[in-house]
Amino acid sequence: MPSSAKVPMPTLERLATYLTVLTDLKVRSIDTISSADIESRAGVNAAQFRKDLSYFGEFGRPGIGYNVNELHKRISRILKLDKTQPVLLVGAGNLGSALAGYPPLRAENFQIVAVFDNNPSKIDTKLWDLAIKDIEKIVSENETLQAKIGIIAVPSRVAQEVAEKLVEAKVSTILNFAPTMLKLPSGITARNVDFVQELAVLSFHLPND
Amino acid sequence: MPSSAKVPMPTLERLATYLTVLTDLKVRSIDTISSADIESRAGVNAAQFRKDLSYFGEFGRPGIGYNVNELHKRISRILKLDKTQPVLLVGAGNLGSALAGYPPLRAENFQIVAVFDNNPSKIDTKLWDLAIKDIEKIVSENETLQAKIGIIAVPSRVAQEVAEKLVEAKVSTILNFAPTMLKLPSGITARNVDFVQELAVLSFHLPND
Repeated sequence: MPSSAKVPMPTLERLATYLTVLTDLKVRSIDTISSADIESRAGVNAAQFRKDLSYFGEFGRPGIGYNVNELHKRISRILKLDKTQPVLLVGAGNLGSALAGYPPLRAENFQIVAVFDNNPSKIDTKLWDLAIKDIEKIVSENETLQAKIGIIAVPSRVAQEVAEKLVEAKVSTILNFAPTMLKLPSGITARNVDFVQELAVLSFHLPND
Repeated sequence: MPSSAKVPMPTLERLATYLTVLTDLKVRSIDTISSADIESRAGVNAAQFRKDLSYFGEFGRPGIGYNVNELHKRISRILKLDKTQPVLLVGAGNLGSALAGYPPLRAENFQIVAVFDNNPSKIDTKLWDLAIKDIEKIVSENETLQAKIGIIAVPSRVAQEVAEKLVEAKVSTILNFAPTMLKLPSGITARNVDFVQELAVLSFHLPND
């Protein structure tokens, strides 16, 4: 399998999209899919789909198409989702609560194993089935948990500080929901999910009054 | 100003990123920014930044840089965020609740004006300060509200049906949080925010054990 440096980010993003489509098909008990089906469902053209897969070897059979379960399994393996990935969540507010209670994460093998906050009135209370822990203890907690993925669901003004704590706790990838750009050491991969930015792009497309 | 068809999507996405950076700077009371500062804060190189802005006319002054407030105002105007944009939210679950209570949306002029759900035990109760309404009434409700942006925060299996109702209610742009690909008529702009996909891309970058 190619090293992560060699696979372009857009290819990876499309692989993640194919996984969503395949999960959807599995739920609907659809067994086989053609690359034309992928084209209509993922909004990615069939040639691009085949090219993306070609990074990772042979898939599918000409004229027959792709076995949904098998393709789901192989893309899951490429994305390292064939085993449970422990995740640390920082921020036990509304968004953190929604994320911790979000069924599709568990369905794709992501498991939030600990929740941290800095609010004394929240620490030691429960968020769903997880005890909320003091953010100051994240380094020692993760010595045991060994999670490599962190989620930041805190207000912007404390997001950078939280990111640094996650790095100190030996997390190597971060999903940041705070609407701020993080400065991170090299070797840490981060992605931003910014609801405001997404809405802003949509807003541009609104018809003029 | 160029029509929406002429501005490439990556440019728009970067404009939305610049807006996040500028909002951040405003909060920190920083008045002036150079394109080099933008480069370090937005992770977009200075030449690209200047090129993106050039779609929309003249900005900044050579050797002096950009006035943060003015640039924020101009990008807001380009993205049609210089006035309040009413938004319909469908789904009064955990995620919908987090979105409706999310302060940064209001800060950038997005205002959730109505929340819909199909669960009889939720209808007519409150989500924050909004009464939850029956999804079956969305078309008539939006005749009054005239919102053009819809947010889908429902489980995958009902997301397509909800999207069709939003289109029927004359929404023209949709932000979809359900991990499924929507089929929409042409003329409707949709964006997907898929937490699982974001985590899957990060997962790929995890070190091998």
